Amino acid sequence: MSRAAPEAKQRFSIFYTVPTRWADNDIYGHANNVVYYAWFDTVVNRFLIEEGGMTPGVDTVVGYVVSSSCEYFAPVTYPEELELGLRVTRLGSKSVTWEIGVFSAGSDTSAALGRFTHAFVDRVTGGSAEIPAGIRRAVEALPTAP
Amino acid sequence: MSRAAPEAKQRFSIFYTVPTRWADNDIYGHANNVVYYAWFDTVVNRFLIEEGGMTPGVDTVVGYVVSSSCEYFAPVTYPEELELGLRVTRLGSKSVTWEIGVFSAGSDTSAALGRFTHAFVDRVTGGSAEIPAGIRRAVEALPTAP
Amino acid sequence: MSRAAPEAKQRFSIFYTVPTRWADNDIYGHANNVVYYAWFDTVVNRFLIEEGGMTPGVDTVVGYVVSSSCEYFAPVTYPEELELGLRVTRLGSKSVTWEIGVFSAGSDTSAALGRFTHAFVDRVTGGSAEIPAGIRRAVEALPTAP
Amino acid sequence: MSRAAPEAKQRFSIFYTVPTRWADNDIYGHANNVVYYAWFDTVVNRFLIEEGGMTPGVDTVVGYVVSSSCEYFAPVTYPEELELGLRVTRLGSKSVTWEIGVFSAGSDTSAALGRFTHAFVDRVTGGSAEIPAGIRRAVEALPTAP
Repeated sequence: MSRAAPEAKQRFSIFYTVPTRWADNDIYGHANNVVYYAWFDTVVNRFLIEEGGMTPGVDTVVGYVVSSSCEYFAPVTYPEELELGLRVTRLGSKSVTWEIGVFSAGSDTSAALGRFTHAFVDRVTGGSAEIPAGIRRAVEALPTAP
Repeated sequence: MSRAAPEAKQRFSIFYTVPTRWADNDIYGHANNVVYYAWFDTVVNRFLIEEGGMTPGVDTVVGYVVSSSCEYFAPVTYPEELELGLRVTRLGSKSVTWEIGVFSAGSDTSAALGRFTHAFVDRVTGGSAEIPAGIRRAVEALPTAP
Repeated sequence: MSRAAPEAKQRFSIFYTVPTRWADNDIYGHANNVVYYAWFDTVVNRFLIEEGGMTPGVDTVVGYVVSSSCEYFAPVTYPEELELGLRVTRLGSKSVTWEIGVFSAGSDTSAALGRFTHAFVDRVTGGSAEIPAGIRRAVEALPTAP
Repeated sequence: MSRAAPEAKQRFSIFYTVPTRWADNDIYGHANNVVYYAWFDTVVNRFLIEEGGMTPGVDTVVGYVVSSSCEYFAPVTYPEELELGLRVTRLGSKSVTWEIGVFSAGSDTSAALGRFTHAFVDRVTGGSAEIPAGIRRAVEALPTAP
């Protein structure tokens, strides 16, 4: 069973702090596998809003998630201040693939590594759409991690 | 329909920062009424762990929520860094009632005001139990808001 | 500390089945106090959609939750098929107060009793609004519980 | 960008009904990508409890999720009664990989296709552990889909 390995913190382009919540923990006292995806959504949409000019509820071209995945290397818990690193691994004309590293405080090795692909859609026509210019510029402006 | 009024920020004893998450928003673009209770759980349990010595998954005397309520005065959204103020409105021998104010950045008036009561239970016997000494001391050490 | 008592199943007007989910359980192995409110939202909105003609994302007059509360009498867990009973305790011109009983299978006594008030708002003007006619008719058609 | 295709309903071994909840919907009026994983957890754990004899909170050997993924083919919404099909795609000595198809009512083609791997761990020693006998028997008893 080959699987992705933990990733180094320096290999991400931009970071966001995500404190865990009490409800993130499951019956085993660790953050449940599901909530990692809620953290991923949170940092990617924050990037889209703050750097790419996205306006949820107003934009007609929006990104729908068409695939997602995550590998879990070490547990995280509540309370904890996580650092989430974001990078783009593929920029197409109509889709973007994001990769997110989850780092516990003081750790340079990811506790988890997730990714998902946004395919852009015109909500009026229902058809696929070019990535909005502001989002494309924001992605292209991200520093390339070594 | 009489209902509680927004509360001033200075009337809380201790504050915690809770950033909203993408999934907190519902179809109307505001934080859904449900997630406020997840924020409340998050700040009260953080107080219990950091100030009161609670160790989830180890302690045999734990607090069960027997009632909760919230009034919503103004919408909050994502992304936003909320300040949550905590105070204790009733300290019994076997129960504590917490009150939590939700404040948007720069606002001195609560966007919401919630509360819930923890009744302490011995998980082994199933019976009601005295508030653990560490938690009682932490509550008594809270500054009284004017 | 006076508080509401469990309520009999026969005193509700309409019922919906809500199976619990794995993530409803918290570290203590019971449904967390927060998720009850997600169940309440689920049954009330289902009533509004199926009986009251509500169309989320299309309607301009929508109900915002201005207050909510719940008392918890007995734990529920996962997996379990809950029966949720719904009734209206107050019907104003611009607001409705819902009450919801949570029943474990085979039990005639509520494990929890919650309520919340919807105030209707015109999303275009931002002002308060009359309850839409379809919703008013649906509420008035509910059988009165004894 | 090659990706998995929708899967036929007949190719799953066992089915569970999962009604969507109001909070499953995001700002775009569709079930958010995150909640699919909560549905997956719900059906797999139900299988483990009902067929495999798992007792959460009591068992010392438990399955931790080490990887998960999902492809989304067609939106689902609230309210809707989903049928989730479950099958096992890999049964090792210490891990199981589950695959879950999400089906809207009346559809024979999956709206989404997810999977995750449970690695079993002894909570006392922290080391990896053999799959408990009851769970192994339940997996081996699953009908093989064509």
